[in-house]
Amino acid sequence: MNPELFDIPVKELRRDFGEDPWRLVVAGIDPELAGQDETLFSLGNGYLGMRGNHEEGLPLGNHGTFVNGVHETWRIQHAENAYGFAEHGQTIVNAPDAKTIRIYIDDERLNLASSEIIDVQRILDLRAGTLTRSLLWLTPTGKRVRVETRRMVSFESRHMATLEMRITVLDADAELTILSLVINRQDLGRVHTEQPDEPVGGADPRKSEQLTERIFVPGPSQHDGGRSVLSYRVRDSRMALGVGVDHAFDGGGSDVASGWRTRVEASEDRVRHMFQGVALRGRTVRLVKTVTYHSSATAGLTELLDRCVHTLEGVAAEPAEERWEAQRRFLDGFWERSDVRVEAEPGVQQAIRWNLFQLAQATARADGRGISAKGLTGSGYSGHYFWDSEVYTLPFLTYTTPFWARNALRARERMLPQARRRAAMLNEEGALFPWRTINGEEASAYYAAGTAQYHINADITHALARYVSATGDVEYLLSGACDIPVETARLWASLGFWSSDPDGEERFHIHGVTGPDEYTTVVNDNLFTNVMARFNLRFAVEMVRRLAAEAPEHYARLLSRLRLEPDEVDAWEQAADGMCVPYSDELRVHPQDAHFLERETWDLAATPPEQKPLLLHFHPLVIYRFQVLKQADVVLALLLASDEFTREQKRRDFEYYDALTTGDSTLSAVVQSIIAAEVGYLELAYRYFEHALRVDLDDLHHNSSDGVHIASCGGVWMTLVQGFAGMRDAGRQLSFDPRLPAHWGSLCFRLEWRGNRIETTLDPRRIRFELIEGDGPVAVRVRGTRVEIRAGAPAEVELENQGVDLGAFRGLSAGILPREGDTGTLPVLQPEVPVVTTSIPTRPAEPSRRE
Amino acid sequence: MNPELFDIPVKELRRDFGEDPWRLVVAGIDPELAGQDETLFSLGNGYLGMRGNHEEGLPLGNHGTFVNGVHETWRIQHAENAYGFAEHGQTIVNAPDAKTIRIYIDDERLNLASSEIIDVQRILDLRAGTLTRSLLWLTPTGKRVRVETRRMVSFESRHMATLEMRITVLDADAELTILSLVINRQDLGRVHTEQPDEPVGGADPRKSEQLTERIFVPGPSQHDGGRSVLSYRVRDSRMALGVGVDHAFDGGGSDVASGWRTRVEASEDRVRHMFQGVALRGRTVRLVKTVTYHSSATAGLTELLDRCVHTLEGVAAEPAEERWEAQRRFLDGFWERSDVRVEAEPGVQQAIRWNLFQLAQATARADGRGISAKGLTGSGYSGHYFWDSEVYTLPFLTYTTPFWARNALRARERMLPQARRRAAMLNEEGALFPWRTINGEEASAYYAAGTAQYHINADITHALARYVSATGDVEYLLSGACDIPVETARLWASLGFWSSDPDGEERFHIHGVTGPDEYTTVVNDNLFTNVMARFNLRFAVEMVRRLAAEAPEHYARLLSRLRLEPDEVDAWEQAADGMCVPYSDELRVHPQDAHFLERETWDLAATPPEQKPLLLHFHPLVIYRFQVLKQADVVLALLLASDEFTREQKRRDFEYYDALTTGDSTLSAVVQSIIAAEVGYLELAYRYFEHALRVDLDDLHHNSSDGVHIASCGGVWMTLVQGFAGMRDAGRQLSFDPRLPAHWGSLCFRLEWRGNRIETTLDPRRIRFELIEGDGPVAVRVRGTRVEIRAGAPAEVELENQGVDLGAFRGLSAGILPREGDTGTLPVLQPEVPVVTTSIPTRPAEPSRRE
Repeated sequence: MNPELFDIPVKELRRDFGEDPWRLVVAGIDPELAGQDETLFSLGNGYLGMRGNHEEGLPLGNHGTFVNGVHETWRIQHAENAYGFAEHGQTIVNAPDAKTIRIYIDDERLNLASSEIIDVQRILDLRAGTLTRSLLWLTPTGKRVRVETRRMVSFESRHMATLEMRITVLDADAELTILSLVINRQDLGRVHTEQPDEPVGGADPRKSEQLTERIFVPGPSQHDGGRSVLSYRVRDSRMALGVGVDHAFDGGGSDVASGWRTRVEASEDRVRHMFQGVALRGRTVRLVKTVTYHSSATAGLTELLDRCVHTLEGVAAEPAEERWEAQRRFLDGFWERSDVRVEAEPGVQQAIRWNLFQLAQATARADGRGISAKGLTGSGYSGHYFWDSEVYTLPFLTYTTPFWARNALRARERMLPQARRRAAMLNEEGALFPWRTINGEEASAYYAAGTAQYHINADITHALARYVSATGDVEYLLSGACDIPVETARLWASLGFWSSDPDGEERFHIHGVTGPDEYTTVVNDNLFTNVMARFNLRFAVEMVRRLAAEAPEHYARLLSRLRLEPDEVDAWEQAADGMCVPYSDELRVHPQDAHFLERETWDLAATPPEQKPLLLHFHPLVIYRFQVLKQADVVLALLLASDEFTREQKRRDFEYYDALTTGDSTLSAVVQSIIAAEVGYLELAYRYFEHALRVDLDDLHHNSSDGVHIASCGGVWMTLVQGFAGMRDAGRQLSFDPRLPAHWGSLCFRLEWRGNRIETTLDPRRIRFELIEGDGPVAVRVRGTRVEIRAGAPAEVELENQGVDLGAFRGLSAGILPREGDTGTLPVLQPEVPVVTTSIPTRPAEPSRRE
Repeated sequence: MNPELFDIPVKELRRDFGEDPWRLVVAGIDPELAGQDETLFSLGNGYLGMRGNHEEGLPLGNHGTFVNGVHETWRIQHAENAYGFAEHGQTIVNAPDAKTIRIYIDDERLNLASSEIIDVQRILDLRAGTLTRSLLWLTPTGKRVRVETRRMVSFESRHMATLEMRITVLDADAELTILSLVINRQDLGRVHTEQPDEPVGGADPRKSEQLTERIFVPGPSQHDGGRSVLSYRVRDSRMALGVGVDHAFDGGGSDVASGWRTRVEASEDRVRHMFQGVALRGRTVRLVKTVTYHSSATAGLTELLDRCVHTLEGVAAEPAEERWEAQRRFLDGFWERSDVRVEAEPGVQQAIRWNLFQLAQATARADGRGISAKGLTGSGYSGHYFWDSEVYTLPFLTYTTPFWARNALRARERMLPQARRRAAMLNEEGALFPWRTINGEEASAYYAAGTAQYHINADITHALARYVSATGDVEYLLSGACDIPVETARLWASLGFWSSDPDGEERFHIHGVTGPDEYTTVVNDNLFTNVMARFNLRFAVEMVRRLAAEAPEHYARLLSRLRLEPDEVDAWEQAADGMCVPYSDELRVHPQDAHFLERETWDLAATPPEQKPLLLHFHPLVIYRFQVLKQADVVLALLLASDEFTREQKRRDFEYYDALTTGDSTLSAVVQSIIAAEVGYLELAYRYFEHALRVDLDDLHHNSSDGVHIASCGGVWMTLVQGFAGMRDAGRQLSFDPRLPAHWGSLCFRLEWRGNRIETTLDPRRIRFELIEGDGPVAVRVRGTRVEIRAGAPAEVELENQGVDLGAFRGLSAGILPREGDTGTLPVLQPEVPVVTTSIPTRPAEPSRRE
């Protein structure tokens, strides 16, 4: 990817969110930014998400309330169907909206689009976990009204959210009406016929399908004073959803004097709680709306009603401020484990924290559900779970809050039955995880960039392996997760085949797959896929053999449960050892696939910006013929299988592919940044980092209104820790090879490693490790030197430099490869001979499971 | 393809249609065969087609009346859309049915499914061009009623069809009611809402989409005595259709005595003409129903009403029997030009003629419309035109009735504007013809087996080149058809690219295409595509250069009309000369594409019959990974570019691919047969021929009810003429290398060649040519010997043998290639050095345009 080709003067477009590194502040209302702001100001906890819509509803990008996993299914109408094509689409649904609260003063409605707003400011507080808004409204009769709101989606109580509104008429008494709503927006304006569902597809495959028919079939409801509880059945998926609201109202000490009236009107798609009376001058009227959502694939609707009531009653029994304090306590813990502190130019610290906060919001309370591409901030990509979670989000979780990583892995484990069926349908053994899914079934209707991405199976095993090695949580493997490496190893063994190469060697080949890069599809021996499959096979081999040696009773159960034969394991080992890894002796680069280098080269420099992203301007048959990348593919393998490539190989591969990578996917910049840093293109690494950091904050891909790019958020953490601090984890110990940006004063973060928490501080001259939790000792390597960190004894390594700096990357202008002779003298910092390390730790003393 | 793998004991399944080589006779009614029989007994003329439904409607496969080109369009809902995907589907519509005539005796309805039918027989007469039926019905009151029908779709008057019904009550007088109907079946039972169209896709991509909404929007109608004329607008395609019926009734000389009453009831979707009275014993009541259809993409509905009336009045003015005689005269001419006579085992002659008759029915009066895959016999493949017409149907037309070939080519010429737009959308220059279409726009929603089949462009140019060389009709080229070779040459020049091969040679490569075989898709340097593209480029080069030399004013117009530069033509020549033609030195075969031989080999012998065709039982990702063929690909190139391969190469390629070819497409058997015959597998060639001959007659692919496999019908002719008689046309003269089946006494057929008609008679010992029309002389080659045929002077060549007989093909059992040493000593009958012949004849004295 060439940032210059974005043709965006990044600095000028940069939005200003204030100087507070813990708070995003936006003053004024810009309707053009409404969609983006709703995304940036979304609140969520991994189970429940609410977009940052204004309480009054306008100005509006789109309303959204999402409950993780609550989706509708619909029959895919393939224009030309074929055997094994995904049959049912899955789309996250817009849960009934409880965010909306309307206010009227003297019968004038506060309307942000048309009322006279003297002053308005919104603040997303990353430590408090709240979105607050304060505005001053001058009504048509000349009264000034201050309206203050505060909102949270609770991390502590995942089913609960709260909206608080405080209204003060400053100049006089006034008639005040507050309408607090629950609206089934999903079905608003639908034609309620019995016609079959049809998705209305748009031209942009990255958006969500539109479901055009009634989705929420109303079930029983209850209304009791300020409390309403409703239930719905999602029509075709048959999921059950309960939603409840409760209200605490304070008329400003004037309830009797002003005679506040309350009323509730309820229909199946809309509930209105009305509070009406006289707001006395200078007295603050206050409404606290507690919201709850419960969902289930199996429970009955009445049961869900009860759960809603239970949640609301529990919250009501607490002191009023307790929920806000609990929220802050939860986030204190999160930042304690997860914060990354930098001494850098203004705005960077704030932006880093916003990205990390999004990761918490997408994952903290997913509790065994998946992590969707947009978290719970929008309906982009239909709310599907992709490989993003394993490759881009789990590193952050694994090394900062491993229990959340474990929960995310459990989501995959639960999909094993569907993955086994899918493998059988695709004529393979073992399990084939879906490319995109909510309920575990394959939902990708375009197999070339979907089901063909078999690599997701190795990605999952890789994430599991890293989790186990970082935590030592062998218990989790033994509890059933060990089926994942076994079943995915089986997939690879049956998908690939042995064939004699032109050099006479028998090698194991994997044909007809799509790698991470979706600008070529259904290729042979995709390097990323083969390297990851080799990892997968080796991990499975080692795991099974160590089980046999160290946990015979578990081994016996595994053999019988999975009908596993020792022969099979030998075959995996042979396949791994014989795996074809394409390499061009002539160019001395790794081809992206067996025949990638035979393709024509796309002239990216000659492609005008209005023809990007390519996928929206060229037919796949055109794009697929060329050497051009949507996103890092080989370069990602250089990161995930870091030890299997020499530094020199990495440099050559990076130079080759960087010039071919469009960056049409946000999954690219972070990976390019990390490898650019490793091989010595430090300035380029920083520019990629900056781009990733602000993808949503500056809406660089023009679709932030669809939701946060969660993988990019995870990638920002990777860029900091794996790029600038140069951390790698080959399974037995962490290693560091720092590349602190030249203009930064320091970089500091914490990592969890087998029950210990280590604080790492990097400055231009040294790297320092301190054990701040756990008994240690922990050994790490810094540029080949072993460092042992013990409790109370921080360790420091002096750094002569921040790696070699190759200067500006010439590949961008020189075409593809720099001329011979540009190699320079790279210090050999890691052994040149590839080392394969797929290891499982011995059982640790204390698995780390704390949040 | 291995016929043994069909697991069909062909002889046992063979249906018996009687011994008359000119008539198919079926006695009795088998509801299980209803769908197939409707197809076999379809009548059509290339413009209008009627399936062979019984007049009374039952038993029923499916009703069908088709007017060539009258289709509906609908927005394709791609489950995941991408740039350039086909946007609108096209589906031939079921025109209002005028076939149905119901009769009641004493208020009992004749119902073929439940009435007591003593005797029934249907006859398709291939010389008369009629379908007749005779049945004897025993009514519940014990009356015997003879019902005789006769039906035709007129070749002479393409807008006209006639149904005649004669009813005789044998035992007594009886109340008789005849209801003659027009029914808009397309919209029967539809929900008439304003919902958007949605195709209801089935799992079998070979069937037609179902349109679920009202298609025919009623327009003005007229009813005048026995005549009704209606008009409709096809809703989204905006095509106009008129349908008219007229009735001539004869009450058996008893009109007055029995008081026949007539009445008409008309609604917008149904018209009933009722004839009611007493049928006197032994007197024959007769109803002649004349039917007409007119269609237009531009004319108004009232205009179409007028045209219908005009047709009906014209027919009514003729003597009653004239239409039946005209039909026979037309077919006399057809058989005079087109019959292929064989001395063979019983049934073969009849089956050959049925296949040839289908070709007439699909093409004779298409008059510039396309030739759809099922002709007008069913809605299979949605009535689309494919490459089938150019490769499988045009050879028959070109060499027997060249004017019909010219009409079919005109259909392509008319699509040039859309093809130019499509090329631009796919980022190419020139024209890109649609893979499947009715209206000229690409309708294939699955690009991998659709748009990616770029070879259709060369197929069209190839068919045009053959037409021009066989007829000498240069006028047609000059009239505008010359744009086709130019625009398709441009496509190839822009699609391919120059690249340096490992041997250091610069070659012209074409990547990302699908060849005829749809079991691998989107490959590089597909042999068929590259060989055909080379032909296309060379033909365009020669054509342009000869125009420059011989017709400067046409050349000047061409340059300016197409903005053609002489440089461009040079570039085409270079591309053709540098074209990559993959070849494996190791296996000494031509790989189907650059990397075909790297694939795993599918074990066809181990694939059970219930898993065939593969496309209905395996995901494309599975099939595409393997060496397995849906249909001939390289082997088809061996036929179409016969001179560019040596006999030895052909044998090795055939042996390699025959064992990998499933025959899941009916386009395979005929091609395999021809090349099997050429290389010496004579028994296998005959078995393939037999299979193709009876594909529909014995419903060997289990989908004959969807319509006749027209390409296979054309292929049957090719098998006879190009396979058994070994005819090849390399552009300058015809050559013959016969392979008469060992048990046949003779094979005789006629060919048109530059205004002459030559009768060729082959027997086991000689081949004989006689000029039966035209002035000659015509030179042909027989196994290398030049033979000149002059008027009144038949020429004969003695044959020592029918080619070498290699015996049974061992490849089927031996795996892939026969062991080394099996080569034997093949007589070298053609030069071993490939000769490229892409020539245009000099202007002939008399272009042949007669029908």
